[in-house]
Parts: sequence; C-alpha cells; structure tokens
Amino acid sequence: MLTVFGTMALDTTRTPFRVEEKILGGAATFAALSAAAFAKTGMVAAIGEDMPLVNIEAVRAKGVDTKGIVTIRGGKCFHYDSEFDYNLSSRTTLKTELNVIADFDPIIPEEYANSEYVYLANNDPRQNMKILSHFEKPQLVVCDTIEYWIKTARDDVIKMIGKTDGVVINESEARLLCNEVNIAKCARQILSFGPMFTIIKKGEHGAVLFTQRGEVFPATAFFLDEISDPTGAGDSFAGGFLGHIARIGKTDFRTMKEAVIFGNVMGSFAVEDFGVRRLLAITKDDIDERYQKYRNLVLF
Amino acid sequence: MLTVFGTMALDTTRTPFRVEEKILGGAATFAALSAAAFAKTGMVAAIGEDMPLVNIEAVRAKGVDTKGIVTIRGGKCFHYDSEFDYNLSSRTTLKTELNVIADFDPIIPEEYANSEYVYLANNDPRQNMKILSHFEKPQLVVCDTIEYWIKTARDDVIKMIGKTDGVVINESEARLLCNEVNIAKCARQILSFGPMFTIIKKGEHGAVLFTQRGEVFPATAFFLDEISDPTGAGDSFAGGFLGHIARIGKTDFRTMKEAVIFGNVMGSFAVEDFGVRRLLAITKDDIDERYQKYRNLVLF
Repeated sequence: MLTVFGTMALDTTRTPFRVEEKILGGAATFAALSAAAFAKTGMVAAIGEDMPLVNIEAVRAKGVDTKGIVTIRGGKCFHYDSEFDYNLSSRTTLKTELNVIADFDPIIPEEYANSEYVYLANNDPRQNMKILSHFEKPQLVVCDTIEYWIKTARDDVIKMIGKTDGVVINESEARLLCNEVNIAKCARQILSFGPMFTIIKKGEHGAVLFTQRGEVFPATAFFLDEISDPTGAGDSFAGGFLGHIARIGKTDFRTMKEAVIFGNVMGSFAVEDFGVRRLLAITKDDIDERYQKYRNLVLF
Repeated sequence: MLTVFGTMALDTTRTPFRVEEKILGGAATFAALSAAAFAKTGMVAAIGEDMPLVNIEAVRAKGVDTKGIVTIRGGKCFHYDSEFDYNLSSRTTLKTELNVIADFDPIIPEEYANSEYVYLANNDPRQNMKILSHFEKPQLVVCDTIEYWIKTARDDVIKMIGKTDGVVINESEARLLCNEVNIAKCARQILSFGPMFTIIKKGEHGAVLFTQRGEVFPATAFFLDEISDPTGAGDSFAGGFLGHIARIGKTDFRTMKEAVIFGNVMGSFAVEDFGVRRLLAITKDDIDERYQKYRNLVLF
C-alpha cells in the first residue's frame, strides 16, 4: 500500500483564458489520484467543512482510500488562489489561506501503518518527519519540498531528506536548496543528504533521475500541443512514479526508469484540464496507451 | 556533398571561470567541423588577413574542404565578443565587429555547385537566398536564423524559409518569429511558410523535430555533468544533423530522428571546451561511442 500525505485543497486558478474558482486540488489529491491507477493508495489530509462531498466521492470512485482524510470541525479548506501568465509557465500567488492545515497534527489510520510506500508531499518538513514515525517499516519513502520551506526551514528540509529514500523536486527549488545552478551538481548534493535517488523535475522539459550509484536517466516530457492548467503536474508525476513502483514492488534502475515515464504520463494528463478534472476522467487503458505513445514518440 | 555557408570568426568568449580571446569560432566553422565527421563538407566564408593560418589548417585536417573560404585583402575577421553569466545560459554581447562579412558577396567554388546538401547558417537572409541560386539542384536546403534578422528583415526571413526544406531554430527565436509561446504552434506556423520540417532547439533541454506530415520527435539533450562554453552548440547540432543525412542519403522520418540524435551528440561535444577545440579533438569513434551512450541513456 502507498500512503500519500499532503493537502486536499480548494484551488482558484486563473489563466488568461479561463478562471476556475474553488475547484478540487491539493498536492495529495493529485498524487493519490495518479497513484491509485497503479496500486492501493490511501490519502492523509485535513479538510474543512466547506469541502463539497462530491469531491470526496469523486476521489473515492477512482480507488483512493479516503479514511485518512480528516474533517476539521468548524474549519475551512486550504485555499490557494493563483494566476498564470500568458505562456502558462510562470505563476503568481494571489492568496494562500492555510486554514485547516495551519495546525494540523497528522495521524494515520491504523490500516495505513504498514504501508510499504509513503509519499510526503511539500508539507512542513517537521510535519513530514512526524508522520513518518507512525509508519512501521516503509520500504520506500519519497518527499517533495518547496521554496517556502527551503527559505524558512532549510535545516529541517535537509534533515527530512536524510530520512527518506528519494526526493522529487523542481529544478528551481533544487537550485535554491543547493545554491548551485548545475542540476547534476544539485542532484549530487541532495544525494549527499542521504536518499537513494533524486528526481529533478523540469516541467515541460521533462525530468532527470539520479541515483546514489551514479546512474542517470533524463526523460523528455510527453509532448502536448496544448495545456490548460499546469497545476498539480509535479504531484501527479510523483503519484505515477510511486504508483508504478508500488505496483511492481521493486526499485531497480529499470523499474525506476519506467516509473519516471509513468510519472511523465500522469503529469501530462493532469495539465490537460483544470484541477484534477482530467485525472478523474482517464482510465487505466488511457494511461497504458499514452505510455506506449510515449515509447513510440521517443524511439529512434 | 554538403556546403555550409556562414561565418568563420575569431571569438572572444568570457565566462566567470575563464576568458579566451580571438579563438576560432563562427557558425560555419562549428557546422562544417561537425558535418565533416559524417560526409564530404565544404565551407563558404569570408575571413580577414588576421586569421591565423593554423586555424585553416586545423579545419582542413578534420576533412573540411576549405576552397570556399575567401580571404578579403586588407580585411579583418568577423569578431564576436561575448560574456556568459554564472550559469552559462544567458549571454551578453559585448562587441560585434562585422568587418569582412559586412559586404561579403558570397560566391561558391565550381565544385560546390552540385552539392546535394546545403546549410545556410544565421546569415543575412538575402545573402542566403542569393547564394542558394548558385547551386544547381540541391536535394535538401536547411537554414537557421537569429533575433537580429527576425527583427530587422522579418519578411526576408520568411521568404528565405519558403525556399528551404528545413529550418533549425532556437526556441526563443521561433517564439519571436511566430509571436507565439507554444512551440508546437510555432512549428506549425514555420511549416506554413513552406519547409518540409523544422527543428526547435531548446539548448540544454534538447530539441524537437516537427514535420509537414505531422510527425513529432522530442529528444532530450545528451546529459553532461559540466559544460565549458555553450558557443556553437546550435551550429554543431545543425552540422551533425545534416552530416548524418548526407551520409545516409535519405530524409525519411527514421533517418531524420537519428540525425537529430547525432546533432545532439555534436552539440554536446562542442560545449565541452572553448570554441571549436573539442570538435578538433574528437574522432569518429568518439562520436559513435557517444551516440551509443545516448541510446543507452534514454532507453527504458
């Protein structure tokens, strides 16, 4: 089983082409929906009473175990309001209302405790380390982090990374964390904190996997003519990546490379519509078909 | 035979790590050196009397036919002085001394007239169209262009593209030319000007090939831990691309995809040392070895 810990949010997302208010989002939602297409996945998140029930139903309908979703009495959902520029590549935060996640003390349902796989999304690194102690003996723990934590809790971010097996991080945040531009050097620095591998995500340019054994796997992104909303691409990548690993049950280099491609595939679906709408619509066949398409696309 | 028309320059290249003054460079030099490793290649360029003879010898020693290099009496070489920032990705032009290329009226040696393959580097589009009329019946003509011509002679750039079979262009310049951010849309617009294919180069992120038949091939760049000088990567890409096509003698999609990879390979060599130094040092075996390495690298 894979447990995903992160936010289940209501997002307001604005692009020059469309605005969608209070749609279902959040790192855990994207990651869990992506992972559930591959393996048994549970979600740990705090929500407020304003979360429309239909959203929980939708996530559950895609196979996500929702017992770990805690509704905070009298609370309001984490709300993230942001705006993309014309090329949908640079985002401006308009409002971040932490609400129920501000003082969330995460606990996990008993059935999640023996999860072999754990994904700690870009939460407070101290929260991530705390929840990690509730798992009995996970085989593979992967974390993400973001600018805010690197800037405000750098030591804890590094400490957290040291307690994980893998890091999935954006190129710009890897550079910030390591104070280094060259991503190969960033990767080596992150690996020096302890994990077995790190994946540097480069958005529309794909991702590069680096392992402690010195292996490297650069993968171009699935080629899309058009995207609607880049929100959640990274978490969907992480979900697809971990979902495939949980399904196969191995972490050899070949499986990890395939997992990177499934990560790319899930990220590519996520950006085709606003919020998690596309992830709610696709089938396992769609995923396999796109994986094959990707293989044919990059074949030479 | 492949004829390359462009600059043979003396470059002053400054990085935060090293400065090299008046070293051999120029679009034609990078492209011809890269192409000559694959197929018979001649070079058309104007140089001044200050070009050290040793540079001509070095290019000739790598198999480039130099009969098309014209020395302008009393003239000085095109000199480009530029400085890279710390991450070697953004370049500031300090000085552009056109010198002999300002009023160059290119002519081609008689033996070049029946070239099957022609590469028109980022020259004045009117010069490119003019030289093109000297070839008898080339099978494949490929051009590049840069910001300066797009800004000062946009109509001629489009007219030139209409006379070619393929365009190799940087991402940022494709966006400028097409006034469009999405590179798939840029590619379609460039294809609407007439060529059979276009390749959008994305620097360290690789390149994407688009054909008139709707085929797409995104290729990640060869992964390098460290680069020394990004100068000439694009022209080396074009040289490797055209060199492979000239060697195989076909332009089917499969050959073009292989050619993109050989382009990536040559670009990756070019950036490993200052100027053309690395291109002068490598052997055909080095190229084949890196091609195989690339294949293994991206395999999954």
